[in-house]
Amino acid sequence: MKNIIGNINKAFDNRVRLGIMSVLMVNEYADFTTLKQVLGVTDGNIASHMKALEKKGYVKVEKSFIDRKPNTRYSTTKAGREDFKKHIEAIEKLLNQNHKKT
Amino acid sequence: MKNIIGNINKAFDNRVRLGIMSVLMVNEYADFTTLKQVLGVTDGNIASHMKALEKKGYVKVEKSFIDRKPNTRYSTTKAGREDFKKHIEAIEKLLNQNHKKT
Repeated sequence: MKNIIGNINKAFDNRVRLGIMSVLMVNEYADFTTLKQVLGVTDGNIASHMKALEKKGYVKVEKSFIDRKPNTRYSTTKAGREDFKKHIEAIEKLLNQNHKKT
Repeated sequence: MKNIIGNINKAFDNRVRLGIMSVLMVNEYADFTTLKQVLGVTDGNIASHMKALEKKGYVKVEKSFIDRKPNTRYSTTKAGREDFKKHIEAIEKLLNQNHKKT
């Protein structure tokens, strides 16, 4: 019997990570504050998810100063983009088997 | 700024729960063994997710004997079906904003 959730990537298996990657897939960059507002989560929450995604090589972090204020912005890597697309396909495939019968 | 992951239901926010509900949405019942095989997870893993879904009122558990052997089978409730549909819509909406720009 085929494992129907085998292709779902654990690194993206959480709504905050789904949200982060969805934003980074359609924006070249997104900074910390924007992500926090758009996802409605705390500093600590985003920081921990970003650290995990960075560790997996799915996200790049750039630190700079804008008007002498520290700015942290994120972008997705090629690997992040490719693996997130596979993750989305796996979720859509799983969910589409729903639509066939309901 | 709108919270783009606000409608994603934490109770379903995990690939095993996504898999469980997907199976139960297109099958009147599914027993423990079938779910374990189809999802490729351990007994303990399924049992804990089922307990959580049952506690939320999203899944019903029926225990019976088949050929004198104990059988546990699951089905989704009306609330489970309705909320999972909303969850799927929220995920598809989040992911579709991806397709517009990539």
